[in-house]
Amino acid sequence: MKYPIKRKSSTITTNYSNLGMTLESDIELTNEYYLANGIAIIHKKPTPVQVVNVDYPARNKAKITEAYYKTPSTTDFNGIYKSRYIDFDAKETKSKTSFPLRNIHSHQVEHLKNISKHGGIAFLIINWKSYNKYFFLPIDVILKYWDNKKDGRKSIPYQEFLDNAYEIKFNYNPRLDYLKIIDEYYLKD
Amino acid sequence: MKYPIKRKSSTITTNYSNLGMTLESDIELTNEYYLANGIAIIHKKPTPVQVVNVDYPARNKAKITEAYYKTPSTTDFNGIYKSRYIDFDAKETKSKTSFPLRNIHSHQVEHLKNISKHGGIAFLIINWKSYNKYFFLPIDVILKYWDNKKDGRKSIPYQEFLDNAYEIKFNYNPRLDYLKIIDEYYLKD
Repeated sequence: MKYPIKRKSSTITTNYSNLGMTLESDIELTNEYYLANGIAIIHKKPTPVQVVNVDYPARNKAKITEAYYKTPSTTDFNGIYKSRYIDFDAKETKSKTSFPLRNIHSHQVEHLKNISKHGGIAFLIINWKSYNKYFFLPIDVILKYWDNKKDGRKSIPYQEFLDNAYEIKFNYNPRLDYLKIIDEYYLKD
Repeated sequence: MKYPIKRKSSTITTNYSNLGMTLESDIELTNEYYLANGIAIIHKKPTPVQVVNVDYPARNKAKITEAYYKTPSTTDFNGIYKSRYIDFDAKETKSKTSFPLRNIHSHQVEHLKNISKHGGIAFLIINWKSYNKYFFLPIDVILKYWDNKKDGRKSIPYQEFLDNAYEIKFNYNPRLDYLKIIDEYYLKD
């Protein structure tokens, strides 16, 4: 049995009526909560756009009339929490059995691996839509499968998430409290 | 006497013929050097664009036909160096006497102040074009003037840069080695 995520309008309101709009919105609302409460400063990077043509119909108002989306060179989210550099991307899967590695770009894996090497906290937040569950997947677990991709499986089994990823419980506010995972597994003395 | 900065094509090449293209390009080349040499991972965020209309002339190829530039909510550059979160913006002035505070958006100052509070290293890189000089200006120095803006001066005098900012010498590669300042003044034991 599937538990479909309801997609509603992207208007951000303060009531709880548009719960589970999209993973990205839920993370952005979580980040707004973190920012407003002085907990962390984590932002989504703008989607990169290659601008080809711009008109100036009025003074000081540039109108872009031709542009194309570019592939981002890094991940979507980064920022600072308790002096630590945080970097992650958000992914969804409808699968019930395994998360396909083709959902991640190789430059994103390289970037997260590199961030981790430089002392940052690098991970993915993955929404298993069939189970209505959210996981914090550390870069180390991704690399275990990524590095064997050529001669082995091309996906990460759900069981691996149950064993070596951390579940993020969906709540009202903050929606997806992923920093709690960082407190428990990265910053505990 | 002025020392004009030559603006040339924005094509990035590996020779030194387009030295001093623009401050932003010089910082991006510096960041590429840092990344290629495993020193730091610092990227420029894409310019945010509000997309109003998109056409799909061909499968899988979205063409943006109406969009507008948005004011960025944070700064242009962030990343990680020696486990530390780095955040800054780049500014230029043609003045010979003082850097006008209207060159900085209030949300950028708030953001940098907040980053510093959370343990990050927050600053501006300012190019004094009349002197052909580059300075690393810590957020603390900015705040000293910013907080007195209403009842006092609306600019930071050049003398303050000489006294309390750090000069970044322009070189071949990396162009503007601003991490050297961080080594000397932030990370020294």
